Parts: sequence; C-alpha cells; structure tokens
Amino acid sequence: MGTCVNHPDRETGFLCMKHEVYMCEECLKCRDPEIYCKFRSSCMIWFIHKQRKREEKEKLAESAVQKYTVTFKPDNKFATVSDGATLLEAAQEADVPLNASCNGKGSCGKCKLILESGDIKTVPSTLLDETEKGKNYVLACQSTVHGDVTVRIPEETIERKLRIAGMGKAETGRLKGLVRHISPMLVEIPLELTPPTLDDSVSDLDRLKRGLRKSGIDTDRLSISLSVMRDLATVMREENWKITASVVRKKCSDEILRVEPGNGTAQLLGLSIDIGTTSIVAYLVDMSDGSILAAASGHNRQAVCGDDVINRIVCSEKNGVKKLSTMALATINGLISEAVGSVNANSGQIRNVVLSGNTTMIHLLLQIEPRYIRMEPYIPAVSEFPILKAGDIGLKVNPMAAVFVMPSPAGYVGGDIVSGLLYAGFHRETPLTLFIDVGTNGEIVLGNKEWLMTASCSAGPAFEGGGVRWGMRAEEGAIEKVSIDPETLVPEYSTVGDFPARGICGSGMIDLIAEMLLTGVIDQSGKFVNRSHPRIKQEKEVTAYIVEFADHTGIEEDIIFTESDIDNIIRSKAAVYAGFIVLLNHAGLDFSMVDKMIITGGFGQYLNIERAVTIGLLPDIERSRFQYLGNSSVAGAYMALMSDEFRKEAGRISNSMTYIDFSSNSRFMDEFTSALFLPHTDMKAFPSVNIRR
Amino acid sequence: MGTCVNHPDRETGFLCMKHEVYMCEECLKCRDPEIYCKFRSSCMIWFIHKQRKREEKEKLAESAVQKYTVTFKPDNKFATVSDGATLLEAAQEADVPLNASCNGKGSCGKCKLILESGDIKTVPSTLLDETEKGKNYVLACQSTVHGDVTVRIPEETIERKLRIAGMGKAETGRLKGLVRHISPMLVEIPLELTPPTLDDSVSDLDRLKRGLRKSGIDTDRLSISLSVMRDLATVMREENWKITASVVRKKCSDEILRVEPGNGTAQLLGLSIDIGTTSIVAYLVDMSDGSILAAASGHNRQAVCGDDVINRIVCSEKNGVKKLSTMALATINGLISEAVGSVNANSGQIRNVVLSGNTTMIHLLLQIEPRYIRMEPYIPAVSEFPILKAGDIGLKVNPMAAVFVMPSPAGYVGGDIVSGLLYAGFHRETPLTLFIDVGTNGEIVLGNKEWLMTASCSAGPAFEGGGVRWGMRAEEGAIEKVSIDPETLVPEYSTVGDFPARGICGSGMIDLIAEMLLTGVIDQSGKFVNRSHPRIKQEKEVTAYIVEFADHTGIEEDIIFTESDIDNIIRSKAAVYAGFIVLLNHAGLDFSMVDKMIITGGFGQYLNIERAVTIGLLPDIERSRFQYLGNSSVAGAYMALMSDEFRKEAGRISNSMTYIDFSSNSRFMDEFTSALFLPHTDMKAFPSVNIRR
Repeated sequence: MGTCVNHPDRETGFLCMKHEVYMCEECLKCRDPEIYCKFRSSCMIWFIHKQRKREEKEKLAESAVQKYTVTFKPDNKFATVSDGATLLEAAQEADVPLNASCNGKGSCGKCKLILESGDIKTVPSTLLDETEKGKNYVLACQSTVHGDVTVRIPEETIERKLRIAGMGKAETGRLKGLVRHISPMLVEIPLELTPPTLDDSVSDLDRLKRGLRKSGIDTDRLSISLSVMRDLATVMREENWKITASVVRKKCSDEILRVEPGNGTAQLLGLSIDIGTTSIVAYLVDMSDGSILAAASGHNRQAVCGDDVINRIVCSEKNGVKKLSTMALATINGLISEAVGSVNANSGQIRNVVLSGNTTMIHLLLQIEPRYIRMEPYIPAVSEFPILKAGDIGLKVNPMAAVFVMPSPAGYVGGDIVSGLLYAGFHRETPLTLFIDVGTNGEIVLGNKEWLMTASCSAGPAFEGGGVRWGMRAEEGAIEKVSIDPETLVPEYSTVGDFPARGICGSGMIDLIAEMLLTGVIDQSGKFVNRSHPRIKQEKEVTAYIVEFADHTGIEEDIIFTESDIDNIIRSKAAVYAGFIVLLNHAGLDFSMVDKMIITGGFGQYLNIERAVTIGLLPDIERSRFQYLGNSSVAGAYMALMSDEFRKEAGRISNSMTYIDFSSNSRFMDEFTSALFLPHTDMKAFPSVNIRR
Repeated sequence: MGTCVNHPDRETGFLCMKHEVYMCEECLKCRDPEIYCKFRSSCMIWFIHKQRKREEKEKLAESAVQKYTVTFKPDNKFATVSDGATLLEAAQEADVPLNASCNGKGSCGKCKLILESGDIKTVPSTLLDETEKGKNYVLACQSTVHGDVTVRIPEETIERKLRIAGMGKAETGRLKGLVRHISPMLVEIPLELTPPTLDDSVSDLDRLKRGLRKSGIDTDRLSISLSVMRDLATVMREENWKITASVVRKKCSDEILRVEPGNGTAQLLGLSIDIGTTSIVAYLVDMSDGSILAAASGHNRQAVCGDDVINRIVCSEKNGVKKLSTMALATINGLISEAVGSVNANSGQIRNVVLSGNTTMIHLLLQIEPRYIRMEPYIPAVSEFPILKAGDIGLKVNPMAAVFVMPSPAGYVGGDIVSGLLYAGFHRETPLTLFIDVGTNGEIVLGNKEWLMTASCSAGPAFEGGGVRWGMRAEEGAIEKVSIDPETLVPEYSTVGDFPARGICGSGMIDLIAEMLLTGVIDQSGKFVNRSHPRIKQEKEVTAYIVEFADHTGIEEDIIFTESDIDNIIRSKAAVYAGFIVLLNHAGLDFSMVDKMIITGGFGQYLNIERAVTIGLLPDIERSRFQYLGNSSVAGAYMALMSDEFRKEAGRISNSMTYIDFSSNSRFMDEFTSALFLPHTDMKAFPSVNIRR
C-alpha cells in the first residue's frame, strides 16, 4: 500500500511496476496520460488495472461453471475441477504422478485409468485393447469429467522406484579420487576473537573481519547483509567472543551469510542433484571428506505435463512457470528428505548444493521465463548463474545454503552436458572424442582439449520409454536385456531388480530390435516378416511381437513390441546417428578419426554396444573405443560441489563450446532420412553387421 | 512451519535459530538434551520456547491491567496506555513530538502539558512556576495516568519549524563547484540491443552484459538477482530489444538491480541527509547536474526519548531499536515528501541516497544493536557500511535506491564528522587545523594531510537548548544574537525569522553569557553579582536574568536565564576547551601552532566568535584563523552523493583517524575543572578578554 501520486491523502494498492508510483482507483480509471503517468509515455499501472478486471471477469465466469470432485485411488488424492476438464488435468491438479508422455495428445496411451464410478465422456482409443476396455480402462487425457468421478490408477500406470543409474562402489571411489582439494562455496569458520579494549576499539564488524583475514578470507571483497549486522554485537558477545562465521565464496565478492555464537560445528553436508526431464538423482555428500553418504532418485513430477522439454515449456505457458517449478521441487525435496533420513542427518546441515540439468529444467526450476527456448532462434534467458541461496529457490535444505547451477551453453545443450564433460574429462586430453547423452533428447559433443563442438538432435524420448507401447524407464521390472532364440523365436530376458516384467527400458529395446533383425523377425525397414508366427500378434491395425505373455508379467497383460514402437526407435536412432555424421562433417572429420566414443544417459545399466551398432545407433568402429559412463551429470555435479577448481572449469567448458544448430540444417535432414533403416541405407558403413536374408 | 526433527509426521512452528531444525511442542517440553538438540550442546529453540512462555505471561498480566486513553490536543492524537503509565510514555506511544530533553528524569522541565480533564497523579516540580501551575500545567514525565485523560500541548512545547543551518546560494554554488565528475552509485543505462539470430544465439543475460560492457561496465564483476533473471526474457523483448538497465556500482562488484523495457528515462534525483540527534536536514538533488532542488529540515522525532545519544540508546534497550528507527524514519520520510512535493517530483525518482549521522543515529536508523556504544570500551557494531537498498531500511524513495552511509570511525565520532571533514577539506592541506562540531556532543578533529586525531568530549546538549530553562534550537523565534546595555543592563536581541521571542538558541546563549560577564551582571564563576536589579528575578531557590518580559514574547511567559543555565553552558564550554587542550597536548602541540580553526554545528547562523572567545569556548587566538562552516555534515553527504571519488575519500578519512578516548583520561578531568570559569582560571591564556571588576 502507498499514497496516490496525485492525491497524497489516499492510500492505494496500485503500484506502477515501471515507475514505482502508487495511484488511487480514480486516477487509474482516468485515461488522461497526464494523470496516469506524469513522466513517461506508458505506465504499467494501466496494465495491472486491466489485468485485474480481466481476472475478475474470469473468476466470475469460473464460479458460474459447475465443479466436480475427481478422486484417485488407491491413494485417495482428489481434485476439484470444472465441468468438461480432462482426467489428466484433474491428475495435474491433484498432484497425482501420472505418466503422460505425449502431454494429452492421446497418442502415447500411457495415462491409463480405471473408471470406478461417475459421469465421464471418453474418446474411443485404439491404444486400449478389448481386455482393457472390458475392465473399464480409459485414457485420462481423452476423458472429460461431467460429474463426481472416482478412478483407480492401474498397477502398470503407478510409478515404480527408479534404479539410480551408474555409480557402483568403484565408481564412487573414482569420483572421490578426482577431487584434489576440497573447497566448498559455503565454509564455516570458527573464530576466537580477542575482546575489545579502549586501546583496541575497532567496531565489531572490523574485529570479525580481522579474524577472517587471519583465516585466509580476502576481507576487501567481503559483503555482509543488514540482518547479520543488526545482531552482530549481541552474537559476538554471547559466548565470550567465540563465534562461527558462515562465508560463501562467490565469483566477485565473498559474503558473510551468518554469524553464530560459539565454536560448535555440525557435520556439514552437501548435495549434488541431476535434474533430468524424466528422473532426478541426488547424492548426499559429507563435505569434510567427499564421501557419498546416500543417493536417492525419483521421477520428475513434471512428467504429468509431458515427456519432453517442449511439452514442459508449453505447459508452463499455460499454467505458469511456478507450477512447473513446484512440481520439480516436490520431487527434489522428497529425495532430499529421503537421503537425509537414511543417514539420520538433518536437512539444515546441507549448506552446499550443485544443480545440474538441461537448460529448460533449470529455467523451470528457478522460475525463469523459458518460452523463448522453444522458438527460433532458441534463446535461453540465462546461461551462467550466480551463486544462489537455497531458501530463495525453494530447496528444503539450510535456507542460506549456497547453490551453484551448472552453466548451460545453449537452449538445447545444458548444464547436464557440461557436468558430463567435467566427469568424462576428454576436454583435458588430446584424443578426439565423440560424446553422446541420450535422454529425452540427444546431445552430442565432439572435440578434445583444443576445441569443443556441440549440437542437439531431436531424438525424442523413445529410449526412455516415450512413444513406445510398453516402453518404460529403467525402473523395477523393466526388461533391460533380451536375446531371441533364432529357431523358436522365443525371447530370453532379464529385468531390473529381477521383478516380474512390467515393460521394456532403452537397453532392452535396443537388444530386442537387434535380435529381431538378426533372427529375421523384422526386415531392415523394421517391418515384421512372418506375421503368422505364434509370437506375432495381430489386432486390428496393430502388428506386434509378444515379448511376454500376460500370465508371466507383473501386470497381467501381454507385453508386446509393435511396428509403430520399432518405427519410433528407428527415428530416434536415426536422429542420433545423423547428428554424429553432420557434426563430424562440420569439423571436416569422419568416424575413422574418432579416438574415443563416450556414451551416457538413461539407457539402463546393460547397454549392449554390439547391439547398439547392429541397429545403427552407434557407428561400426572398433569396440574398444566405446565407453559407457552412467549418470555423468550427477557425477560432474558432485565434482563441482567439492571443488572451486571444477566450478571454474565448468564455466570454461560452457564458454568454449561452439553450438551448431541442426533445426535448419538440410544436411541433417538428408542424413536422418538415410539412417531410417536397420542399421543404415549405406551398409558399407556397417561392415560388421551381418543380417540373415 | 516445518517438520519436527524427531517426529517427521508433525508440523511445527518452532525453529531452532542456531541449528535450523524444527521441533514439535512435545520435544520442546522435554528437557532431555539428546532430544532438544541432537548435535550441539545448546539449542536456541529452548530459549525461544522459554521466551514465548514469558511473553504469554506478560501478555496475560498486561491484559489484566486497566487501560486508559490519553488524548493530545490540538491534534487529537491519542494513545491507549496501562494504568500508571506516564503522560510522556503516552506521548511516545501516540507519536506526539514532545520535547523531553532529559528522557523522563524530571530535570529539564521541557515536557509541559496542560491538563484539560481526567485523572492523573503528578509529582510537584520546581520547574513549573505559580502562573503555570494556575493554568493546570504539568510535566508529562512526572504525571501518571489513572483514567481517560485529555491534555493540551501548550504553545511553547509545540515544535516550530527549524531553520536549515547554513547553505545560502553562494555556499550551494561552492558545493556544486567541488564536484568535478558526477558519478552516482546507481546509474541508468539505456541500451538498444541487436536481436538474436541462429548465428548469434547467446543467452539474453549475456546479450545484456555485452551491451553493458560497451557502456563501460565491468561485466566480470557484475551480479544479478533471481527476480531480475526471471522476467529478463520478457522485458528484453517487450520494446523490441530497447531496454534500460539500472546498475548499482559497489565496492567489490556491481549489481544489475532492474531491467525495464524501453529507453525512456525520468529525471534522476538524489538525496543527501544529515541525521542529527536533534534535527534532520535533507537536500534533494538533480543528479544530472548537481543542482540542489529543495532542502527540508525537521526535528528528529526520537527527541521524545531524550536529548542525547545515551538516552536514545537506553530508550532502544527498553523499547526495542525498531521503535527508535521508526521515529527517525517518520521524520526523514516526512522531509522527503516535503522536498519532493515542493518541486512537483516523485519520490520514486530518487535512486541515490547518502546518509550522514553520528554513530548512534546510524545504528538506530538501520536497527543495528547500539547498546555497546554506551558501555566501556564503547564499541560500535559496524563502522563501515556496504551500499544498502532503500527499501530494506524503510526510506520512502525508490525501493531499489542505493544508499551510501558515511563511515563512523568510532563510537563517539561518527559519519557526520567524516562528512564535515570531506567538506572542510583540511585533510587535503598542509596547515594544522582544529575542527570542532558542537551539537549534542562535542567532536574534535586535529590534524592536516599528514595525520588526523579525533576525540569526543561530553559537552552535553546545552548549546542546542538541552538542560537550559528557555534553551531551544535555532527555530523560529529563538533569540540568536544579544547585546546588553552596560548602563541599563537592558538587552537588545534579534530572533530567528524575526518572530516574537520563544527561547534562546546556542549563539544567543553565548552572547548572553559574554555580555553578562562583560557588563558585570555575573562574575567569572557565573554567579549573579547584583541580585536587586529589576532585570534579576528571584523565585524560591532560582535566580535568573530576565531576557524578555512575558508580554513581549510569543509565549506569554518571562524568558529568563538562570544561574543553573549558566552553569550548564560553562560545563559544556569547559568540556570543549579541555578537549582542545588535551588533544593538542597528545600531539605535543599548543594553540599557537594551530593555523586554522573550523567550527561547525548547531549554533545557529550568528555564532559570534569574539563572544565565544570571551566565555572561553574558543581559544584566544588570532580571529582570522577562525572559520564557521554551517551544517558541514549535509554538505559532505552531498559531495559523497555526487561522486564516487568522495565516497572513497570518506572511507580513507575514517580509516586514517586516530581516536583518543577522554573518558578515562585524568588530564582531561584536570583541564575540564580548570576551564569551569569565565573565560578560564588561567587568564593568561585569554589576554584579549577584558572583564570589568
């Protein structure tokens, strides 16, 4: 509230965002520009006023619409929605983590629900089979609500525990070994100061600075907030001049964040977080020695808004970026409390955090406007971030914890890739390396210590289960390894955690296509050859290979792999392979000159390089040149958490990358088309792949 | 609210300030140290809990006490107070600007009110004469409330408009001339950026930085807040890549405070403020050319808590530092709106502010704990301040305005003295200079460009009217110039603004004592010689010289000057003179070596140097060496407002001063005692003073 700029006796809540003046209702209603803004040509108050009117109108309209309650079993979460809203919108409202790969287009068939009672209208979908229809299955995004409704989330739609990618004991040890000198952003410095006397009467702050200077802090570049200054005198005397100062070391100037009485210190913890479009992984670290105390992972709650970053941005435009931020924070804060709880620690002990994620994920989390990332020329608002305070961004750790965000070199090459490089380390070495991260997108980096070139190819989320009938992430029960008996065409497989099969993850799909190709189940264009085999199921338009029959699965349905699934995988692998070729070509190179090929991403643990070459995802080069890295994003985040050296290195990596845009590259389209074949239309490029004819 | 550290299912509001953990009621009540804090020996939650209980108890006790309403006429302000509260407390509560020099001790007799109705108990005071008692006068601090009460503030207690010290047109011109290069802290930079393309796809922030770099900003040391980043993409595109960035230039790193669409710019204003214990002065400045557009001054509202800094600190200990801050802010914000209104500008245009004040005033305003300033060894919490944001400290200017606070070298030598030096400039020159600021304290600086030595002598507020029966500040109606006819002993005088006399200000008191001494009305010890003269009034214990009879005044009472008043002035001048001697002595010097003597402070415009020597306030040296500077604190603040050079110089001045403490200096006590005579016990030191015997 403030005083109207024209009527000093009137209190008003209308503040012009542009000129910082208040204005009363009467002045707002007046269109005379002399009154509504005295010193500039346009005034934001007017805008706010109009906006308020519109909001009022919308609210009125809103309240006239009939409202219904949608209850989701088994957890009994519920939402109140307007007549005509979809069940998917209700799920978003109720914060029910429903898988909605295609963000409501009705094309993925993942958002299955069982209608128990209530009035809905549903669009018939070929993605539901007769058995499902008999059991009252509906697609959430294709069903609108017209009365109070109760639905049940079926077994196969409920999200399962994610397996944390990579990082066994050995790898963790290797990670610790990479850190030569531990230097967190936020340090706690215990001090024992000499009390003041008449002869030594500098101010309390100067006395504190003197102490810090002795501890190696450059006090000339030290800043301090008003709130710390306000209590400083009391705090310094409370335990007889024994204090502990929390100092965050920033790029340009350090800051005293807090001064506490006494020299007691709690165990200081750190957190490195990989924020993936699909899943989020967090490591809880003992900052004193770099030990990884706990790891936790979970599905990004934003999944209810679609599988890929484009859908997420569209969703933020519709619902506000804050909504998406809240969803990601719900996942992250859940993982934090899980990790902290598992070691009986407290989240207040976490005072250093590193975030690594693609550019969109970071924009959404920090509530930075992301919409221009999806429009040509694909510009992120921010690519390099200052050190933030955890409390300001909603992380449930110590509110003053220092947060370093991995820099994002481009709209479609983010901090997760910089993290990956930091961990992979080839930017410090001579061998020419091709680095590929296949997640919901495919980011490629080519180079060595001399130069780095990067690009993003729209691989799509197929390798993470998106757009594939029974595709799923590397969760419990995901088929991750498959071989097919060439005689009987019966598959043998293993699942994540040896649970009954519930779907197929990336490495499983690669195995499956390669085996089907090699055993002649499909041809090089991905079509089924012999449609009469008992393992081949034909239902209406859909032809599919039955990977497992219903009675052997954990979901009581046949797990099948359709022609359309195969097509999706072929498109994804073609985009990646085309990316390799075009990037190499841009540098005047070819595969023979690549010394090392590093693969990272969400394939699951058992990516079979041989099979990946067979389907033409990876080039047919010497197998010893391949290296699979696991989750390199969280590993790089760990390194940046532990050491200032690595934080600086991350900035250098980001700045030294040259980004090549494929979206308007005709060469890329040509190469993509050529690669829409198993393994490739140019068989000379795959001499080791032998296909039975 | 948060989750209990021991019971994750319980939400609780108890947060341990020390360890940042939440705890539920049950855990709080448990005294088991293992539970109430797991990882340290002491826990602040316990403290908070106990404090809450105490507060609840107090609240309960409070609510049981009978409450009464006290109404203050003529403005009808009112307060609700408990039975037994004093009228002074009620005035503080109601924010009535009552003069209460002695902060409720009952010794100054300034807080007079007229009881109109209601039940009070009042302690009889010799400070009220029979006429006053007949008119129902009471002293606010000596009267307790025992029913609803209505009082009237009498004419002589109402505060009058302060005359702004110093600064005529010539002086203002001189001030402008001192600034060679205008360099505000907060600058507005209009930019017209080239839109991004696929070939130039840096992030919006990097594009902004590129633009700023071209405008001479060092973008390597640039910081930016999350809130600016969040809207950056939208703002930059709103007026087609035309934007205006507000950047504040700090010591270690610059900060982008705001980015606005468009290149329109309002006239930028600045504010320099002198926050005196008694009065506050503000200059409104056009930042483009340094013109002083308006000046405003007023009484510091804290006066209701006593005249001097010690009383203010005591008051803050009792009522909380926030209360005192609010009082000063009320004055300052009133002056701002007055100044801004007089030139038809808007306070949102003010984006640069400099504050100059003594150490206690600055601590109180910024709500920094001041209590250790009044306890040996007199340590301020902070002496050098970072650049603050106006919104954070409650100044009603643009909330993001940059605020520079003049550094305070010691607990009793503050930023006002540093300002004074900046303006006086002798620290840049060779001549040995003695600088004295007599306000409610007496601060002395001795030195030249080679060295600076400083001290504070407890002169007391007598020269500003404190502890003097009819003493007042240089407000309208204050007698500021007096001469006495040696034959008739009738005084001739002039008043501030030629208003009917209402009291006597500093320069008037000095004239008065000097004239009384020279005409034989008083002797060298300050006692009246001939008590039977018609101009001498004797009432009970009190003997006084009648300066003006009631019917010629503006207040219908005799304006008198008592022996006790004379004694107070003698003690004040003795403290200052002793300060000179001891400081010179400390440097191995005497008055003969002083090349220049600069006097500044609240004496009013007509300080008569000759008379000041006569009473022994100033040394008997060549008169041409004296210089009177007016309000040098606001002048120095102006210089710091306009130029970064001067802000840096202020820091250097503050750091180069050596503070000498007089409080435990026996030499000072000796010199003080010797100076308790008019002009001095050592008459050889005052050869030019001829006193009739």
